[in-house]
Amino acid sequence: MTHRLADLAAMVGADLVGDPDRLIDGVATLEAAGDRDLSFLTNPKYRERARSSGAGALLVPKDLSPDTLHGLRADLLLCEDAYRALADLMTALFPAAEVEPGVHETAYVDAAASVHAAARIDAFAVVGAGSTVAAGAVVGAHSVIGRGCRIGEGTVLHPHVVVYDGSRIGDRVIVHSGVVLGADGFGFAEGAAASQVKLPQVGVVVIEDDVEIGANSAVDRATFDTTRVGSGTKIDNLVQVGHNAEIGSGCILCGQAGVSGSSRIGDRVLLAGQAGVAGHFEIGDGVQVAAKSAVFQEVPPGQRVAGIPAMPIAAWRRRNALQSRLPAMRAAVRGLERRVQELEAAAHSEAAPRADRDTDTGDEK
Amino acid sequence: MTHRLADLAAMVGADLVGDPDRLIDGVATLEAAGDRDLSFLTNPKYRERARSSGAGALLVPKDLSPDTLHGLRADLLLCEDAYRALADLMTALFPAAEVEPGVHETAYVDAAASVHAAARIDAFAVVGAGSTVAAGAVVGAHSVIGRGCRIGEGTVLHPHVVVYDGSRIGDRVIVHSGVVLGADGFGFAEGAAASQVKLPQVGVVVIEDDVEIGANSAVDRATFDTTRVGSGTKIDNLVQVGHNAEIGSGCILCGQAGVSGSSRIGDRVLLAGQAGVAGHFEIGDGVQVAAKSAVFQEVPPGQRVAGIPAMPIAAWRRRNALQSRLPAMRAAVRGLERRVQELEAAAHSEAAPRADRDTDTGDEK
Amino acid sequence: MTHRLADLAAMVGADLVGDPDRLIDGVATLEAAGDRDLSFLTNPKYRERARSSGAGALLVPKDLSPDTLHGLRADLLLCEDAYRALADLMTALFPAAEVEPGVHETAYVDAAASVHAAARIDAFAVVGAGSTVAAGAVVGAHSVIGRGCRIGEGTVLHPHVVVYDGSRIGDRVIVHSGVVLGADGFGFAEGAAASQVKLPQVGVVVIEDDVEIGANSAVDRATFDTTRVGSGTKIDNLVQVGHNAEIGSGCILCGQAGVSGSSRIGDRVLLAGQAGVAGHFEIGDGVQVAAKSAVFQEVPPGQRVAGIPAMPIAAWRRRNALQSRLPAMRAAVRGLERRVQELEAAAHSEAAPRADRDTDTGDEK
Repeated sequence: MTHRLADLAAMVGADLVGDPDRLIDGVATLEAAGDRDLSFLTNPKYRERARSSGAGALLVPKDLSPDTLHGLRADLLLCEDAYRALADLMTALFPAAEVEPGVHETAYVDAAASVHAAARIDAFAVVGAGSTVAAGAVVGAHSVIGRGCRIGEGTVLHPHVVVYDGSRIGDRVIVHSGVVLGADGFGFAEGAAASQVKLPQVGVVVIEDDVEIGANSAVDRATFDTTRVGSGTKIDNLVQVGHNAEIGSGCILCGQAGVSGSSRIGDRVLLAGQAGVAGHFEIGDGVQVAAKSAVFQEVPPGQRVAGIPAMPIAAWRRRNALQSRLPAMRAAVRGLERRVQELEAAAHSEAAPRADRDTDTGDEK
Repeated sequence: MTHRLADLAAMVGADLVGDPDRLIDGVATLEAAGDRDLSFLTNPKYRERARSSGAGALLVPKDLSPDTLHGLRADLLLCEDAYRALADLMTALFPAAEVEPGVHETAYVDAAASVHAAARIDAFAVVGAGSTVAAGAVVGAHSVIGRGCRIGEGTVLHPHVVVYDGSRIGDRVIVHSGVVLGADGFGFAEGAAASQVKLPQVGVVVIEDDVEIGANSAVDRATFDTTRVGSGTKIDNLVQVGHNAEIGSGCILCGQAGVSGSSRIGDRVLLAGQAGVAGHFEIGDGVQVAAKSAVFQEVPPGQRVAGIPAMPIAAWRRRNALQSRLPAMRAAVRGLERRVQELEAAAHSEAAPRADRDTDTGDEK
Repeated sequence: MTHRLADLAAMVGADLVGDPDRLIDGVATLEAAGDRDLSFLTNPKYRERARSSGAGALLVPKDLSPDTLHGLRADLLLCEDAYRALADLMTALFPAAEVEPGVHETAYVDAAASVHAAARIDAFAVVGAGSTVAAGAVVGAHSVIGRGCRIGEGTVLHPHVVVYDGSRIGDRVIVHSGVVLGADGFGFAEGAAASQVKLPQVGVVVIEDDVEIGANSAVDRATFDTTRVGSGTKIDNLVQVGHNAEIGSGCILCGQAGVSGSSRIGDRVLLAGQAGVAGHFEIGDGVQVAAKSAVFQEVPPGQRVAGIPAMPIAAWRRRNALQSRLPAMRAAVRGLERRVQELEAAAHSEAAPRADRDTDTGDEK
């Protein structure tokens, strides 16, 4: 959608330096942008790219130095929070397509399901008995909703989403392709002859409002009661959330992160990529877990942790730094042993004979 | 399904303390349970929650201390193995729904496929030529069975399972949504100009009886011969099993674990969450691999390993403990250097002059 | 397909030792091979298995020692590059099935889509408006192609692939089941009250020619511009590629590897299993990242790295070796403290009294 630059500036409260009547209808990187595109410069290290960019306009933070801005040919939008402004401008430039309501001729909706007239059910989708799909919701092609589910207002299930029986999805939720919600939790009891006896998984999954879940992620149903993903939480691709986990509001779970069964995760927690959290303890509000880390115990609110096992990030950095000094430390120990031996020999030559001492440097261990 | 408490006690050989005629029709956590629910207390640290629980009855291990049991208001079922009893009681309270046989009107079954009259094929499912689906099996909505496959008796494929040509699935297997069985193994030979030449993957996948496979996991077909998952093995979500892997019976592969091609894994092996096993060597029976660990070499039967690379868990714990002592060790080395220098200076002042010694503390390295 | 051994030898330029008229129609492991099967021996440690193998013919490298070849009963094909020869012979013995063109009666092709007469669209597949499917391409059962996509010549989408709007897939690409191409990147800006504001993801995904992508992997669309997977790159199962990543040609991404948004990966890069690469920096051509490693910074071309954080592999090995020597090093430090204390005591007894020294061994820290 095309906008005047002055209108875009007004939308996000930016100061405009340049032509208010310039027409903008796209957003692109500095390299790819043309004169009807908006681009952005937030990091001084990309200054040269910005100078040679063909972008019609650039979004820049107000606190960028004059030196960085020097020599830019594009019109400028100066903002307090460039990323937030970018999100808002992109939403204006690329408005979500209107949902065309209706049930596709090839979809299969059970007679005992209830689909709002303002919802859309795409090709080959299945909606089971007792399930409700609210106004403005989209059930993508091939998505399968089991029995007794609730799909909230304005929620979008992309193609190939599976929602098991009894799951409850809130409003304005976005679920990407390949996501599985409500599959059985991984719960077994030891049976005879070391065999595993399945615990029936009779709980449900609740996804609260404004959650987004990335492609091929899975959130298991609870053994009993509820596995819950709190409102506004954003989950990336290929993330695993185990049975009975409780994830708070406003969390960010990056790609391939894993949350074990019965974990309790507070609000605004960040799990970076490939991080893992073991079950049965509490991760406090605002905790940040570094990429590839593994949390094996409670973490108090606000703490940043890293490592396997995860520890406060300062301790992890210290440990890493010390490890890179190990070769020097070992050399120092060897040097000391030589010197002590010499001191002993000197003392020995002055005194009575004594037994040999252990001079192990650890090399043969 | 509703049961008298006395009947439930009899099913699992529990001692009943309380009202034999109490009716129970659910299972819930201590917090959520009502007076027709069964809950359980196995860990003394949840004693207070148990005391304030509204549960009608509690399952408790016989060896729980009288102190822990004191003050509980609920009726009690005292068992030898509370988890096993829970599994059995849940199976009684929540019996699996009867399979309604039949082929859904929207399903596509090839004329050369054979579906037992007592099997069910759900909406939009596809069954390819030469495949057989045995009695009591369920092929969920949208699941796709290739050509020449076998789906055993009582096996359940949830919606959106893909079974490539020639795969053989045993009896009473449960496969969750998004699972892919029999995709090509990841095998290439180096071609001209560093390009990769695909090795045709002409082997198969065999899933033995009583296996369960979690959402979005993948088991690749063999390059030739067979990739095998042994009977009774349970696989969690998002697990990868490479081509030609051989996994024994009664194993547990937790979420996001990975097994490389040509790995050989014994019986009753546990891979905890996000663990990985490299290929072409043997993991003995009963081995336990800790979460987030990476096994790069053979592990003898019964060993517990942890770390990257994985080592016996005692060694890994020792290594971790020593690492947390590195700052103190470094301080000790520095202290020693000072003291030795003083000793040397004292000796020097008594003797002939000598060259300076290395006093490297490792800090500049 | 059956071939004379002499013809197979000629195909790959192998020297034949044995019966040129032997008929071969399969490939199998040493254990499973029969007299019409080809097997192979490349590693001397499997010599005994080769001697007792029932294989009709064995593929062996020309440089295998006479000692290793001694006692083999099978006919031999001696090759320069046995793996490459195996790939070529398997392609001859197991030719890909001819694509039977046509649109399955149950598929749904939008009136504004363009499917080549020599392409195949399988059961329940969906092809959206404005998309083109080229000659020889296969869209597997249940696969969903969005709007405005391009599927190149001879490209195979196995069942249950999802391609979001606007994605461009090259020629001879193979995409396995459960793969999701072009889902929204994981991009949010901080909004009011610590909430997340979604950045519309308006870029695309480009998969170049001859790429293969394994089951349940995901490649996100770009925020703007392009997420690109270069020609000939092979991606295993459950791999995550974030928005705006640029992956070069001829790379190998093994199972469960993860590439963050905006990563730039050169040509012929290897990411071993469960490795991760953080975003916004460059991995040079020919870099090899060990299994389970995490790359947090730029890596120059040709380097092999390992560890969390990843470092040159020699440094990682040294660090590991030193860690296993930590117990001995600690013992050495304790020994030194004892000895220095004795030296000090001796000096002390000869001189004036002095204050006690720190004798911390680090144990209480």
